[in-house]
Amino acid sequence: MTNAVSVLGLGPMGQALSGALLDKGHRVTVWNRTASKAEALRARGAVVAPDPAAAVAASDLTLINVVDHDAVDSILAMTGDAADGRVIVGLSSDTPDRARQTAKLVAHRGGRYLDGAIMTPTSTIGTPEASILFAGPREIFDAHRDVFATLGVPTWLDEDTGRAAAFDMSLLDLFWTSVSGFMHAMEVAKANGIGPSELLPHALGIVGILSPILEEFVERVENNRHGDSSAPVSSVAVSVRHLIAASHDAGVDAGMLEVFRGYVDVAVADGHGAEEVSSIATAMADRR
Amino acid sequence: MTNAVSVLGLGPMGQALSGALLDKGHRVTVWNRTASKAEALRARGAVVAPDPAAAVAASDLTLINVVDHDAVDSILAMTGDAADGRVIVGLSSDTPDRARQTAKLVAHRGGRYLDGAIMTPTSTIGTPEASILFAGPREIFDAHRDVFATLGVPTWLDEDTGRAAAFDMSLLDLFWTSVSGFMHAMEVAKANGIGPSELLPHALGIVGILSPILEEFVERVENNRHGDSSAPVSSVAVSVRHLIAASHDAGVDAGMLEVFRGYVDVAVADGHGAEEVSSIATAMADRR
Ligand SMILES: NC(=O)c1ccc[n+]([C@@H]2O[C@H](COP(=O)([O-])OP(=O)(O)OC[C@H]3O[C@@H](n4cnc5c(N)ncnc54)[C@H](OP(=O)(O)O)[C@@H]3O)[C@@H](O)[C@H]2O)c1
Ligand SMILES: NC(=O)c1ccc[n+]([C@@H]2O[C@H](COP(=O)([O-])OP(=O)(O)OC[C@H]3O[C@@H](n4cnc5c(N)ncnc54)[C@H](OP(=O)(O)O)[C@@H]3O)[C@@H](O)[C@H]2O)c1
Repeated sequence: MTNAVSVLGLGPMGQALSGALLDKGHRVTVWNRTASKAEALRARGAVVAPDPAAAVAASDLTLINVVDHDAVDSILAMTGDAADGRVIVGLSSDTPDRARQTAKLVAHRGGRYLDGAIMTPTSTIGTPEASILFAGPREIFDAHRDVFATLGVPTWLDEDTGRAAAFDMSLLDLFWTSVSGFMHAMEVAKANGIGPSELLPHALGIVGILSPILEEFVERVENNRHGDSSAPVSSVAVSVRHLIAASHDAGVDAGMLEVFRGYVDVAVADGHGAEEVSSIATAMADRR
Repeated sequence: MTNAVSVLGLGPMGQALSGALLDKGHRVTVWNRTASKAEALRARGAVVAPDPAAAVAASDLTLINVVDHDAVDSILAMTGDAADGRVIVGLSSDTPDRARQTAKLVAHRGGRYLDGAIMTPTSTIGTPEASILFAGPREIFDAHRDVFATLGVPTWLDEDTGRAAAFDMSLLDLFWTSVSGFMHAMEVAKANGIGPSELLPHALGIVGILSPILEEFVERVENNRHGDSSAPVSSVAVSVRHLIAASHDAGVDAGMLEVFRGYVDVAVADGHGAEEVSSIATAMADRR
């Protein structure tokens, strides 16, 4: 079954979402602040709306995918009463509180709001590799699940509209920290005469051991069991100093490792030196 | 074929190494600064040496696995002329320069030195899951490859003794940054009512998308191709601010993300805002 769907926001992700909907035969109306970005989609069969109000009025279901919720709300401010009786799905990344605020704004305009978080890159959209988390009224999710399923694998989490964003913030945290750790590792390697392609297979080996280690950490944290250490905090406290020294020797800023050293040192000072590294999480409590 | 192998240092990793050697029938002599840690291995058939000199004298091949190379060198200082004509393999984590210094110290005492870096946790030792990188004279590696293979998969890298440590520093950088990103994500999730077990499957999903992303980054960096962005730096600059806000809202220190934001902001200021995130690596150059 094909549906009418509007997509507001045509950055790399909005383009991918619109393209996947067109590929599956949905009737797609698009709008973007910078109009030129709509042309390639027009050529593929999308209707280009002149403004956000016209775009929202064109379909029962509107997806908004822009940089964040300040941008979402500024677009909603231009929709007049078009959202009245319609469903707006926000797919922009932001904090749980911002998602809840947008839900209120939509309700105020007579519409119903579902929040979503896209957990995978643009290249996955339209394939089973794509994962999209949803939060808000279950009935909205169920009513439009088929459309969401054309974009990737949709998972509904909770009635609390902030829930998808809470997952998004935690998971992007892991994602960007890991990605930036890799870029940092590449720079340290490069200064040591190891090229990115030479480092890559070994880096993929590290990624390969992460999953069982995260599983073990979760088990330890859930059971507050940090003894019988196989990699003690005291050992990491020494090791991280060498990593920082190697980074400086390589002429690469060591800021992230220095912050990590701070957490490790707090854990040692708090008497956790002989415990497993899983015990340092509590040292991350905000000390501002 | 079984060999005589000495193991100096019986922390969690030294215990695992000694245990794997015993399991494969090698004649194992052990020593540890804190003598009590040798008892379990004595019960499994290891000979316990009274001091480092006796331990090194007991075998043609000695593995040293202690916290770092300051500890290695302090142990070597206690070996008199026992290393003369023998092979010492250092398996402690430290900087490339420290590995090269230890090689000189061993040569000064008439011995030959090979450096190694263990890239996987204690639980992998003695299985094909374990990866150990070696650097230094190829002939030493070849002569003892069979013993190394009882510990895991051994890979010889280069004649330069510092090469294994250079890989070790880069890969541990990626490892600890990622692990600490996960612990941070767990804390942010927890403050939002998402327990570690509830976060875990989604975190494993993030780990699952890392490999193709690292492959793409390497390809982009090797070819200096950061255009045709599917996740622009400018978008990450906004996103990381929401991650920091979400972290503060959760009462969790955001130090690592703040350092990352600094790199992203430098990249934007340098005119890379519309490029792929792979372009931020150069912003990590040391600004001290
Ligand atoms: N790219 C990915 O791999 C990926 C993955 C998962 C989630 N996401 C999320 O998806 C969202 C969109 O990402 P993106 O990659 O497409 O690029 P982006 O740079 O985050 O967003 C670009 C879009 O936002 C619009 N925009 C920005 N400020 C606006 C404003 N004040 N008013 C109206 N429109 C505004 C842009 O319009 P103009 O064209 O007029 O500038 C463009 O349509 C973000 O929240 C991102 O975190 C992206
Ligand atoms: N555990 C892992 O998963 C893992 C994985 C890869 C690599 N590594 C590396 O393997 C090495 C050993 O790690 P580990 O986990 O076994 O624990 P560790 O805490 O790093 O090392 C403990 C060992 O170092 C000895 N030691 C420390 N200072 C010493 C000194 N000044 N003189 C003599 N001995 C000294 C300890 O002796 P006492 O018992 O007397 O204190 C003990 O034998 C480290 O370099 C580590 O980075 C470990």
